Amino acid sequence: MNPPDILELKKIVGEENLRDSKADLYVYGADASVYEGKAFVVVKPRTIPAVQELMAYADKNSIPVIPRGSGSGMCGQTVPVKGGIVLDMKGLNRILEVNVNDAYCRVEPGVVDDDLNRALSPHGFFYPPTPASSRIATIGGEIGNNASGTRSVKYGAARDSVLGMKVVLANGDCVNLGSRTRVASSGYPLERLMIGSEGTLAVIVEATLKFVPLPKFRCMGIANFNKLEQAGDAISEIIASGCSPSMLELIDKVAITAVNQSMNLGLPDVEAILLFEADGMVMEAVDFEIEKAREICAAHQGSGIEVSYDAKERERIFAGRKKLFPALSRYREYLASTSLADDMAVPFSRMADTARKIHETADKHGIIMTAYGHCGAGCMHTKILMDTTKGAQWEAAREAIAEIYEHVRSVDGTTSAEHGIGMSKAPAFKQEKHDLLDLMRSVKKAFDPKGILNPGKLMDAPDDWMSAARLRYVTQEGKDA
Amino acid sequence: MNPPDILELKKIVGEENLRDSKADLYVYGADASVYEGKAFVVVKPRTIPAVQELMAYADKNSIPVIPRGSGSGMCGQTVPVKGGIVLDMKGLNRILEVNVNDAYCRVEPGVVDDDLNRALSPHGFFYPPTPASSRIATIGGEIGNNASGTRSVKYGAARDSVLGMKVVLANGDCVNLGSRTRVASSGYPLERLMIGSEGTLAVIVEATLKFVPLPKFRCMGIANFNKLEQAGDAISEIIASGCSPSMLELIDKVAITAVNQSMNLGLPDVEAILLFEADGMVMEAVDFEIEKAREICAAHQGSGIEVSYDAKERERIFAGRKKLFPALSRYREYLASTSLADDMAVPFSRMADTARKIHETADKHGIIMTAYGHCGAGCMHTKILMDTTKGAQWEAAREAIAEIYEHVRSVDGTTSAEHGIGMSKAPAFKQEKHDLLDLMRSVKKAFDPKGILNPGKLMDAPDDWMSAARLRYVTQEGKDA
Repeated sequence: MNPPDILELKKIVGEENLRDSKADLYVYGADASVYEGKAFVVVKPRTIPAVQELMAYADKNSIPVIPRGSGSGMCGQTVPVKGGIVLDMKGLNRILEVNVNDAYCRVEPGVVDDDLNRALSPHGFFYPPTPASSRIATIGGEIGNNASGTRSVKYGAARDSVLGMKVVLANGDCVNLGSRTRVASSGYPLERLMIGSEGTLAVIVEATLKFVPLPKFRCMGIANFNKLEQAGDAISEIIASGCSPSMLELIDKVAITAVNQSMNLGLPDVEAILLFEADGMVMEAVDFEIEKAREICAAHQGSGIEVSYDAKERERIFAGRKKLFPALSRYREYLASTSLADDMAVPFSRMADTARKIHETADKHGIIMTAYGHCGAGCMHTKILMDTTKGAQWEAAREAIAEIYEHVRSVDGTTSAEHGIGMSKAPAFKQEKHDLLDLMRSVKKAFDPKGILNPGKLMDAPDDWMSAARLRYVTQEGKDA
Repeated sequence: MNPPDILELKKIVGEENLRDSKADLYVYGADASVYEGKAFVVVKPRTIPAVQELMAYADKNSIPVIPRGSGSGMCGQTVPVKGGIVLDMKGLNRILEVNVNDAYCRVEPGVVDDDLNRALSPHGFFYPPTPASSRIATIGGEIGNNASGTRSVKYGAARDSVLGMKVVLANGDCVNLGSRTRVASSGYPLERLMIGSEGTLAVIVEATLKFVPLPKFRCMGIANFNKLEQAGDAISEIIASGCSPSMLELIDKVAITAVNQSMNLGLPDVEAILLFEADGMVMEAVDFEIEKAREICAAHQGSGIEVSYDAKERERIFAGRKKLFPALSRYREYLASTSLADDMAVPFSRMADTARKIHETADKHGIIMTAYGHCGAGCMHTKILMDTTKGAQWEAAREAIAEIYEHVRSVDGTTSAEHGIGMSKAPAFKQEKHDLLDLMRSVKKAFDPKGILNPGKLMDAPDDWMSAARLRYVTQEGKDA
């Protein structure tokens, strides 16, 4: 792969939209993963023709291009591991159309999730895939990773909200995928193939999204369980009963401890807390769902059950979950919260034993792991809390992760629920999808014959995540972990 | 392309699962489209290894293979136009698992939609993509065409219900696509690429589907509109209001006439009838949606508005829509109902003017066309009623169809909503997706390098639908239309 000609790039995007200072390359070299890399240059195109020209130039000269939103990805998706050009798509950040009569909106990829929802809200609608990082996450990045969040149990992931998109191909051609209509069966659904492709197939420059009515009522509930398995049984029964919660969250003991320590919330000393929410246009319908969830929790020895429609009360109930992410970083001095094995999906009935397996495996290897997540969608989030200055802790993490993913595969789970693969989950992904890697490479080649789009990711990432790129940590032993 | 060796095939599937009599080849040569073709042989494998062996044999010997469910496709998807082997997938018709705790089921591709729903119903769930042909349509065929039906406005199409699948590739390899989990972001979503690929990429041998709770209450309403445009405005406003009907159907004047003539239903002499339905677990929630729809219909001069929860009354209200399809065949002596331009999707706000355009274009060309459909999903169904013994009528149909699809594209519509492309819609499809055809061919090649899977369909179908295959009609002029 070749370095680009800075003068050529300036001609294409304009001098003011190109950065190559040391500081810029440092910032754009990392995302929310454990990795760092180094691009040759960062460009921020402001128009689709500029993206087209850039791609044509990069393709002709075999230069890697890494499309990037806000860099909130946790698996190294946007880390430039082969140099090249980081394409900062936040320069394309307009909401082009909110069409309520046709129930779609068209947005540029750099639009931030919360901003889109602020634009939809006055019309009485919302865009539901919303991840926890919605304050910064861009629609392009969400599509690239098939993002979802706490409400995916009812409203699905990005793949359930995308109708079509405009993409720039590796050769610079701009094409329309999908449709603006609610249903479509017009040939290969290439727009769906893009969802979760992590910037390796084409550059999304516009998306057509559907949206759903904002519910008038929300009610949130909480239940504490002495045993993880009791919470697990409650989850399965809620699902099997045909209950339709708009949220169903599991918080494990490690997470409870972290939140209590860091925020003094006084959550009970139990193995698991379940949060459940129902929403709707009519209070009776919300009551119906909440009552079912409440009864099932009680039947499985859930204690301290509370439910509330009141906004302030809901906020109080949800506080533990909301503050979880920052709280984990303050769990114990010297322990950093690293995004490793950060999300996996398992069938609903396997949430509890998967959480148990995660804790046991962490104990065995002398690290600390949380197991919380959107159990209504089978999504388990984990963080590894470890002393990143110790090489031995990294080795322990490597072994623990391999064992945990082996368990995930054994219960018919999948490597990633909503964060994607990037590099950190590539080994587990490659084991899970071993029989599809060649097919994925052929598909990649159909879109990107020279392999310039985000190289070194997914099926093309190394088999060992620890050596996939430089880690953003230095061990006391004086070398990278 | 080569003919297969019958003895070899008998060894693979067993003598009892192979047919090559003249009558069998005739039956399996056609589907519900205007076309007929001729396969060399029909085989009905009973196991996945048999499918694998067949594909490996066909691939090695460059023999076309046409996967087929019940042959209810309307666009020629399963018509064997290059000879070869018709793969009757109804030999694989077991429901393998109904897992209520994990909210998925696993089925073989030959399972009939209604049979699956009969199996889910005792658990309190249903599989919603259900097309009108659900008595015969198979799950494999529905996935191959991204099928949907009257309830797609609320519950989506096949693509919204498929979690994963097992497919046999052209080379005989059997691989798992997607997952069993509710969410997943583990690399390219190849399972989604399969949905709507019409048997051209791989052979589906198992599908993992999600299902949704059966609603306890259903309420149906009807409103008559003197002008199509009034109905159109009501549709747009229902959508824009955030109303969530479980069904929203448009019946046009031609369809009303057909139903009245054939069944003496006494539907009013208006330009359009809207049927609307809401469903839910709680009656207050259903009332809320129905009242909103009813008010909006009234505000747009809808008359004769009725709503009912009663099953018999709902049946009576829906009778016109339900009997529409057979009624069209009895519209007038000598006129046959042909599946041409049979479904297109347009944005909600363009339903009325698209219906108007269809009627005007038909009038201009001396044919009769209906325009009815699932307007809650932007899906417009049409039939051309014509004297198929007259070559001039076929020519008129060709011109009318071209003009109508030009309109569909001009209003941001798409060629097919839920029936697929096959051959009859290939010209319109190729015009709509002109910039994607090479990319689709490259993707096809990645899956099926020798091009043995259902050749001559989609992007590889001829530019003129009338000469794509032999038509199942003979004109008085003594030659094929």
